[in-house]
Amino acid sequence: MKQDKLLSDKTVGLKPSGIRRFFDLVSEMTDAISLGVGEPDFDTPWHIRDEGIYSLEKGRTFYTSNSGLMELRQEICAYMKRSQGLTYDPASEVLITVGGSEAIDLMFRAMINEGDEVIIPQPSYVSYEPCAILADAVPVIVQLKNENEFRLKPEELQAAITPRSKILVLPYPNNPTGAIMEKEDLEAIAQIIIDNDLYVLSDEIYGELTYCGGHVSIASLPGMRERTVVVNGFSKAYAMTGWRMGYACGPAQILEQMTKIHQYAIMCAPTTSQYAALEALRNGDEDVAMMRESYNQRRRFVLHKLEGMGLPCFEPQGAFYVFPCIKEFGMTSDVFAEELLKEEKVAIVPGTAFGDSGEGYLRISYAYSIENLREALNRLARFVAKLRQS
Amino acid sequence: MKQDKLLSDKTVGLKPSGIRRFFDLVSEMTDAISLGVGEPDFDTPWHIRDEGIYSLEKGRTFYTSNSGLMELRQEICAYMKRSQGLTYDPASEVLITVGGSEAIDLMFRAMINEGDEVIIPQPSYVSYEPCAILADAVPVIVQLKNENEFRLKPEELQAAITPRSKILVLPYPNNPTGAIMEKEDLEAIAQIIIDNDLYVLSDEIYGELTYCGGHVSIASLPGMRERTVVVNGFSKAYAMTGWRMGYACGPAQILEQMTKIHQYAIMCAPTTSQYAALEALRNGDEDVAMMRESYNQRRRFVLHKLEGMGLPCFEPQGAFYVFPCIKEFGMTSDVFAEELLKEEKVAIVPGTAFGDSGEGYLRISYAYSIENLREALNRLARFVAKLRQS
Repeated sequence: MKQDKLLSDKTVGLKPSGIRRFFDLVSEMTDAISLGVGEPDFDTPWHIRDEGIYSLEKGRTFYTSNSGLMELRQEICAYMKRSQGLTYDPASEVLITVGGSEAIDLMFRAMINEGDEVIIPQPSYVSYEPCAILADAVPVIVQLKNENEFRLKPEELQAAITPRSKILVLPYPNNPTGAIMEKEDLEAIAQIIIDNDLYVLSDEIYGELTYCGGHVSIASLPGMRERTVVVNGFSKAYAMTGWRMGYACGPAQILEQMTKIHQYAIMCAPTTSQYAALEALRNGDEDVAMMRESYNQRRRFVLHKLEGMGLPCFEPQGAFYVFPCIKEFGMTSDVFAEELLKEEKVAIVPGTAFGDSGEGYLRISYAYSIENLREALNRLARFVAKLRQS
Repeated sequence: MKQDKLLSDKTVGLKPSGIRRFFDLVSEMTDAISLGVGEPDFDTPWHIRDEGIYSLEKGRTFYTSNSGLMELRQEICAYMKRSQGLTYDPASEVLITVGGSEAIDLMFRAMINEGDEVIIPQPSYVSYEPCAILADAVPVIVQLKNENEFRLKPEELQAAITPRSKILVLPYPNNPTGAIMEKEDLEAIAQIIIDNDLYVLSDEIYGELTYCGGHVSIASLPGMRERTVVVNGFSKAYAMTGWRMGYACGPAQILEQMTKIHQYAIMCAPTTSQYAALEALRNGDEDVAMMRESYNQRRRFVLHKLEGMGLPCFEPQGAFYVFPCIKEFGMTSDVFAEELLKEEKVAIVPGTAFGDSGEGYLRISYAYSIENLREALNRLARFVAKLRQS
């Protein structure tokens, strides 16, 4: 009997997502208000949906090339050029993926040899660490600090580097903290990357959602284009989560290997979604601006409410999250979130779902209507007031 | 400098798909007729596209649960029940994937520990071997034989088994040979599987396309449900390749791990496609029957033409491929296919694209119109006649 070996040790060892665990609790409660999901509350803009519809009417239901529609790759290159001044070859340096998440998985699978180290700043998106482990990498976690507004500091990166370091994950604008990295922050990091011959996975899925100046890609800094795979997609900026549309841009040598794995494991990204994405890039700028403005209003509203209840929170400038500190209450984030859910029926994800350094914090998504936000935050205020009295 | 270690050795070592290499040649030639692509020539039936359109109109553009829409998982369970008499729990034993190919990749990643052996009968679909290698498995190839109509024989399986054997890939109905496995064939295999405590990846993506009796899943045999992950999808039966809709059904223990990887690397399958797939399962039986009948006509037409030109070919009973033998011409499949392309501008994939045991064969896809097939096969006949004269 080999039953004890039924499954992959590596896979079994992965924790299921903490977000998921939390929402299993939420789903048992029909009347809870959620500020938990990392997803725009907008429908995909109509003209983008309409283009998907048109492609279906026209019978465009066949495979595209493995890398994705050439037209779409060209539009992505045009976007990278106008937004970051970066030039990529659509034939060899762009791959259309099933969301940004597939691109993350592919980059690790394409580059990692057993024991290579991937440096992952946390709190951050839940997929980096498991995907790195699945690719036989050793994840090296950098615990980001509230006092630095959860930016990655050069000395923190320097301290994490060993002779086995290979890839740095740069998750900005950040989920769950809302942190960004400005040009000067990136310049200090870039120098260390170059000096130590590292590569960067720059996850820029929230790149269009910054509120105090445009996003800067580390790939746009001198010497960094050839060391960076930019991961991006349509889910957040265009409210297209369900379409599963992402992409990677990077050096041809790396993209060639990513494409080979993609070809065997996925074949191609969904065709309807590719046509819709083409429309998004061509005519979606106004939609993005409108949604950005709406998120920004909500961001200020949430910060104002948190200030009102005296919960400390740095001002996040990107994505659609705020990350208030709840350390004063002397309970773990998990317990706080569970008690809040039980007592006030508000679902807010504990910071620890995004790494140990999220302990003592909550992730509030403000991709919800103002009415929803107001009600949920009033309940949070009541909960906090009660805790302080007891 | 670590430039020599830029990429994963494992990934770099994978050959790009032979089909792809061949079509790079074809794409340079504008007037070639192709019998090469493994894809239905039908558009997705209108009512299925219409359901995708309706879901977009309704604004269903958000993530679904990681495993996929519960309604769709329930319909899949109903389908498995009525087609194979198999019972699966939609909550824990079904996963909606990005095409069947993602499910293949996931099963290996969920089950393989380094050095485990995956037994892969060839000729077969191009993804099994690379996905096994990427998961750190050792692929053990079984060379299927024309004299057995490319069925897997018990003695062939037995000879491939070692103490490290873990998973058998069972790729029937088969791409590229069109071979099937009947119930008696499967029974002999099942006994060996059970005796040796193996697991089966049963790739049944062509399961609806058999022409001399219905497909039998090995999971339906006694003792095999708990040892089998059935991989299936909508691409071939419903002409839905571009939608990227597949699924896996199997024991909860395995599906749990597959779902965990899927959650991190892919999140969920495309939402529009999931709504369309729901309609396909509910109201698509007639479409499948119509397309099956059409493929069957073409199958008989192609076999008749091959007989007319004296090319030996067993009668394939599944999928939409025939696999004629060209050994009499004393040239490799690659050279034959390239010469045919150059001289007669007909693109037919060499058998070796699907494994070494495809040497001496061609894969002709008959998912093309009769007019297309007639013209291409007339050219093939002329080419063959010339070769015999020279």
